[in-house]
Amino acid sequence: MFSDCLLSLSTMNKPTVEVCLSPALLHLYETVGKVVVIIDIFRATSTIVAALDNGATRVVPMSSVEECVALGMCTPNSITAGERDGKIAPGLEYGNSPLEYTPEFVAGKTLLLTTTNGTKLLHMVQESDQIIIGAFSNLSAITQHLLAQNKPVILACAAWKDKINMEDSLFAGAVLSRIASQFDLYDDSSRIALAMYRDAIAKGSLIDYLRASTHYHRLSGYGLIGDMEYAAQIDTHPVVPIYNGRELVLKK
Amino acid sequence: MFSDCLLSLSTMNKPTVEVCLSPALLHLYETVGKVVVIIDIFRATSTIVAALDNGATRVVPMSSVEECVALGMCTPNSITAGERDGKIAPGLEYGNSPLEYTPEFVAGKTLLLTTTNGTKLLHMVQESDQIIIGAFSNLSAITQHLLAQNKPVILACAAWKDKINMEDSLFAGAVLSRIASQFDLYDDSSRIALAMYRDAIAKGSLIDYLRASTHYHRLSGYGLIGDMEYAAQIDTHPVVPIYNGRELVLKK
Repeated sequence: MFSDCLLSLSTMNKPTVEVCLSPALLHLYETVGKVVVIIDIFRATSTIVAALDNGATRVVPMSSVEECVALGMCTPNSITAGERDGKIAPGLEYGNSPLEYTPEFVAGKTLLLTTTNGTKLLHMVQESDQIIIGAFSNLSAITQHLLAQNKPVILACAAWKDKINMEDSLFAGAVLSRIASQFDLYDDSSRIALAMYRDAIAKGSLIDYLRASTHYHRLSGYGLIGDMEYAAQIDTHPVVPIYNGRELVLKK
Repeated sequence: MFSDCLLSLSTMNKPTVEVCLSPALLHLYETVGKVVVIIDIFRATSTIVAALDNGATRVVPMSSVEECVALGMCTPNSITAGERDGKIAPGLEYGNSPLEYTPEFVAGKTLLLTTTNGTKLLHMVQESDQIIIGAFSNLSAITQHLLAQNKPVILACAAWKDKINMEDSLFAGAVLSRIASQFDLYDDSSRIALAMYRDAIAKGSLIDYLRASTHYHRLSGYGLIGDMEYAAQIDTHPVVPIYNGRELVLKK
């Protein structure tokens, strides 16, 4: 009886975790007081994690190319970057590839980065308790952070123009596979993401699994297969980028 | 070379299939010219399939209780039915349970049925080529119909107040598992639904898999476990309900 009671208390005290598979569904979730993990595997969050781990001082996520250009002109030691349709956007200097941001290039610099899906989502969850950046490259760091925080979590997928995508959903499933025992899986989307991750693991490598995705087809048409292979590697950058209300920096 | 060409032509000629996991994402899909399968496993579409196979002349899906009551008063030999929060809605005569609509009770009658999620979705896809009703109980009949039609398909999940749910997504995956070789899986949601179905099959019975769903918890709180066990059975009603613009009838 006493142990049943303890078990029940322990279940009740677990924080919740939910998965929002598209920004178009975000209005169905309460973000206040929660830790939100922004997920945009191909390629914004993979690029942000790489740039910060490779020594960028900060990454400023921006919605528009115009804003990015304007801020670049008045920010010393900065890089303006962003793509539209797989090419560097006119007016910007660099692209969205995680492979571009080597330590030699990015250390000590401010990266002003404009992306479509990830930035939009980040600006939609400003009321949350904390915003962090997730990618396969920092999977263990993120999951350890979530376990240590012990607060309710929303895994928020950037998707592609609001359409649910495989790679972001798969990453949500990967996080859940590591934290599920310590959290209360609160919605069906979390169970769907976890099911998909189990299916991927049963089939073999993550990148092989993701070759069926629409994003893989789109980006490989732009010659960006190397980016995706890099973004599907686990734990290459064991850091936690955190949003301070204006920019992304490494958690101290 | 010639056989490559034939193969390529055959791939190109396959109709597309897409999965819309929530009505809140339906604006991202083009429904014109497509066959839309409405899916609301717990319990609207399972109930519609049972009622029609058991001899109901027609099922008229309605959005509001008020409409349902009004039409019931001027429709001879009709039944008004619908629930809110697991109980028969005030003013209506019967509920949303597939088990209620036995041949003895429903044969020869018009069922005026108000449901929240399924009816809303049905009214959202009026521009499509054809609207049919899918449930595990008519899985084989539906897939045979889709294969015979050879037209582009949208598997449209009713979800729960726009939140993605396991049971509708799982049914979409079950349909895909039977038609995928003859269709072009066009979006990532279809691959996610299929992955989930494979995960369910690997684990055992569908109903055991669905016991983790939020809907299962909600409805079992209303004592409706029997309904869900019934709705998770495959091919108990081998019929294809089709929408004629006003009501659902059996495909001839």
